[in-house]
Amino acid sequence: MGEKLIEGLKIKKLSIIEDDRGSLMHMLRNDDELFTTFGECYFSEVFPEKIKGWKCHKSQTQNLAVPVGKVKFIIFDNRVNSITKGKLEEVTLGRLKNYKRLKIPPGLWYSFKCISKNKALIVNCSDKKHDPNESLHLDLNNSEIPYNW
Amino acid sequence: MGEKLIEGLKIKKLSIIEDDRGSLMHMLRNDDELFTTFGECYFSEVFPEKIKGWKCHKSQTQNLAVPVGKVKFIIFDNRVNSITKGKLEEVTLGRLKNYKRLKIPPGLWYSFKCISKNKALIVNCSDKKHDPNESLHLDLNNSEIPYNW
Repeated sequence: MGEKLIEGLKIKKLSIIEDDRGSLMHMLRNDDELFTTFGECYFSEVFPEKIKGWKCHKSQTQNLAVPVGKVKFIIFDNRVNSITKGKLEEVTLGRLKNYKRLKIPPGLWYSFKCISKNKALIVNCSDKKHDPNESLHLDLNNSEIPYNW
Repeated sequence: MGEKLIEGLKIKKLSIIEDDRGSLMHMLRNDDELFTTFGECYFSEVFPEKIKGWKCHKSQTQNLAVPVGKVKFIIFDNRVNSITKGKLEEVTLGRLKNYKRLKIPPGLWYSFKCISKNKALIVNCSDKKHDPNESLHLDLNNSEIPYNW
């Protein structure tokens, strides 16, 4: 890597405590340096090869982890005043090597695909509860985001 | 049912929004009547037939949901001043029929077993962050809890 991430995007390695009955996996704590407030926790299941998006939150921050399966996220920075405007980022989340938390600040477009053989589960601990008026949507293939799934 | 639950134990039905790419599943929001504070979110994986427990938190409240697989929880009330002291409760969590959130207040003993063919995932949004000095442990078979796994 070495290259700078999209401004405001954060990726943080998370711990897994192995156990032969089933592992314990960290996600988010209220004393984490990237934690602000708790709005909602919900789960998004994604079947193999399926894609969800594009979505852009106007004021909500996402904190995402993938405890089951593997998911490839594409994030696009189209924010007028961003120093990384125009940048596309590809981030893969999933155990073991990529067991990380992805923080997506408001104003970025993102979509994601399940790239594991079995279904994936995304857990989101967002900083605000769901509000249908707070997010924007675009079709998977559109003229605004320079990425073709 | 009809019978009274252990004092302070709460079970709440959660919504699933079906989607052919993968469902969206509710867990916990900051405006839920059972929400107090956010301490930590973590995941506990449980392999088929495996059992974890017994555990008792002195001050932490657990908010548990099972988005993957099925888990049987046994909860035991051994609190001196509880009106349900001595009561054992069995609660199964898992989709579809039992997609619910289980709130376990401090002072109760609990253990759980994966009863699905494939591994299960428990998500906990506890009201306090993990503190190793805050919980008590007992072996699966012990003389204090009248339940044999």
